[in-house]
Amino acid sequence: MQKTLKVPGFEAAAVESGIKYEGRLDLGIISSRVPSVTSAVFTRNLVKAAPVIDSINLLEARKRFRAVVVNSGNANACTGPRGLGDCKTIRREAARLLKCGQDEILVSSTGVIGAYLPMDRYISGLERAASGLSESGLDDVARAILTTDTRPKTSRKKFSRNGHEIIMAGIAKGAGMIAPSMGPPQATMLCFVCCSASVEPSFWQTILQEAVDVSFNRITVDGDMSTNDTVIAMASGLSGNPEEDGTGVFARELREKLSALLMDLAGQIVKDGEGATKCVQVIVKGARDILDAELAARAISNSSLVKTAFFGQDPNWGRILAAAGRSGAVFDPDKADIFIGSCQIVSKGMPLGEKAEKRASAIMKNHEFSVTVDLGAGAAEYQMLTCDLSDEYVHINADYRT
Amino acid sequence: MQKTLKVPGFEAAAVESGIKYEGRLDLGIISSRVPSVTSAVFTRNLVKAAPVIDSINLLEARKRFRAVVVNSGNANACTGPRGLGDCKTIRREAARLLKCGQDEILVSSTGVIGAYLPMDRYISGLERAASGLSESGLDDVARAILTTDTRPKTSRKKFSRNGHEIIMAGIAKGAGMIAPSMGPPQATMLCFVCCSASVEPSFWQTILQEAVDVSFNRITVDGDMSTNDTVIAMASGLSGNPEEDGTGVFARELREKLSALLMDLAGQIVKDGEGATKCVQVIVKGARDILDAELAARAISNSSLVKTAFFGQDPNWGRILAAAGRSGAVFDPDKADIFIGSCQIVSKGMPLGEKAEKRASAIMKNHEFSVTVDLGAGAAEYQMLTCDLSDEYVHINADYRT
Repeated sequence: MQKTLKVPGFEAAAVESGIKYEGRLDLGIISSRVPSVTSAVFTRNLVKAAPVIDSINLLEARKRFRAVVVNSGNANACTGPRGLGDCKTIRREAARLLKCGQDEILVSSTGVIGAYLPMDRYISGLERAASGLSESGLDDVARAILTTDTRPKTSRKKFSRNGHEIIMAGIAKGAGMIAPSMGPPQATMLCFVCCSASVEPSFWQTILQEAVDVSFNRITVDGDMSTNDTVIAMASGLSGNPEEDGTGVFARELREKLSALLMDLAGQIVKDGEGATKCVQVIVKGARDILDAELAARAISNSSLVKTAFFGQDPNWGRILAAAGRSGAVFDPDKADIFIGSCQIVSKGMPLGEKAEKRASAIMKNHEFSVTVDLGAGAAEYQMLTCDLSDEYVHINADYRT
Repeated sequence: MQKTLKVPGFEAAAVESGIKYEGRLDLGIISSRVPSVTSAVFTRNLVKAAPVIDSINLLEARKRFRAVVVNSGNANACTGPRGLGDCKTIRREAARLLKCGQDEILVSSTGVIGAYLPMDRYISGLERAASGLSESGLDDVARAILTTDTRPKTSRKKFSRNGHEIIMAGIAKGAGMIAPSMGPPQATMLCFVCCSASVEPSFWQTILQEAVDVSFNRITVDGDMSTNDTVIAMASGLSGNPEEDGTGVFARELREKLSALLMDLAGQIVKDGEGATKCVQVIVKGARDILDAELAARAISNSSLVKTAFFGQDPNWGRILAAAGRSGAVFDPDKADIFIGSCQIVSKGMPLGEKAEKRASAIMKNHEFSVTVDLGAGAAEYQMLTCDLSDEYVHINADYRT
């Protein structure tokens, strides 16, 4: 596999520790040579996994961290005081291996809920990972964090200004239990970003929040929100640029590139959604206001009937319109237009006939297409990315634990 | 087929009119010998089918009706002025055949959205149905209204008081696009009730609303709300009891029996949900208030991950707890208990181990079982009926129109 994700100041490694399955990478370390300015957002689910609780506590006390330790196969969720104790043990061991403070390390987990971590294997894996750290290790960590994903998700951005080259690389995982939360702090899967820029902590937190809002906050696979969702972004400062606090010359590009990076990763998650065969951009426009646009877009994107119609390549606009109609958004169905790609199939609430639907059906044979609903009630717009609902989704989730 | 649904004062019939498919009953009439006090509730979806709009208008003007005409195979939804005109034509023809006013007839439809009714076949079917009306025809109408249902849903209640025998019979259909709405007027499928009691109109509307609230309002198959949902209840008065307005001796029993009738029918709908292999009662108790209990019960009942776990007979309490955690209900996960049937699998947010889960898994091999979540936050409770999500659901809905 090509190693493409090098970022100045960061080393990483992943190992097969046998946490759940044999013969696959499942434990990784991302290590920063210097204390990196670190921002993060987490699930808003009331049921939070031990590493999420542990990380939230640590981030309240400090803004600079040295490493992230992450495993798949076990979520360390619903594990009570013992689960929190295991996080502390992991941090203590990692701090010893990486020669930093145990409060400078964030732990993250994904996998089965309600099982204790196999700490012997975990710690022995951690030692092997720490001894294998390299500048080109982030690609391996991208594979180690996968669960029901079928492929790693990675993205990289680079730009230069005033002689300073800034590099950011991100990895993400997530295929099921994927649904956006509404307000900060939030996230919907695991995502880790390494960046070489020098940034002021609150600016870095602000632009991460913004980037999550336009990316992970607008995707859905199955409407379920996880107990472990985490996005962590570390900035080493090794680019040597003047510390950017939002008022400097790097502000706009950092903001744009971070959003683009997360949008790229979010799109990869939807395309690799559990059982997904289609990636569909749902665009609701002509809404009374942005909240109505969002309500309608989410109702359409999460509707089982709409999603099975996508799977069947059926331009079933009646289900789309009915989902918008029950969403809470206020509009007059007799003014609504619907398009599949650029092909209009509904005008003023009425179907345009078989010819239009045949063209729409042809468009739906593609792996990616858009659905646009114009509510005809105003000027507000909202977009979501969703996938179809296939029999494979059912098979994956009916058999997940057994 | 046994004909069991006779109610004094009512005749019914169903025919094969070929609206969509050949060789199956698809058009029915329920006719009342006298003007029956009629109450009704309809979908709250903004996108309302023509017969729903037509019926709402008629019910604003009068409370006594003579007949319901209902078809399957075509929803007459998103059909604009022509769809509304077709309703009027149907009522005019039915009035001629049944010798009553055209404003005394309610039309109801279910099936594909966005296609015009084949009026020639419809009207010719209507004539044959009208000529075949009989006291034992309601069972046939129960079959004629089915779409993806695999079996008819019927229920009958009888009680006597002060020498007056009161009979009520109900039929219902619904297998997909089934999800409750929240406030009146509402409904979630088609349901028609014939009753022999003499009732005052506003009392009859009130107790229908109450009955829908504890029955159809608490079931879900796929979380989608239809454009055609309709419950119509007709009371002929032929029992000869003093007109019941809520203060008389029949009030309590009428209320209880109507609720029981609709709960019976609602249960039959969930058991016959599209692709369903399990019928699951979701009980949330120990909530701070009833709204929290409802939020949690609905989130669990509509979660794709929970429903696929039901299909897999997997007591995946982590998904159940996570769904409650994202529902908006306020509780401390460390105080939550979860039971499958009478078998506790989570205590104070922590799993009780493999032995308990094995017993729970055995309970889940049954077609019907309950899931109880005690949030440990108060005394409020809410119950829902849901089904599992199987590969068959996906097949049915990916292929529905083609």
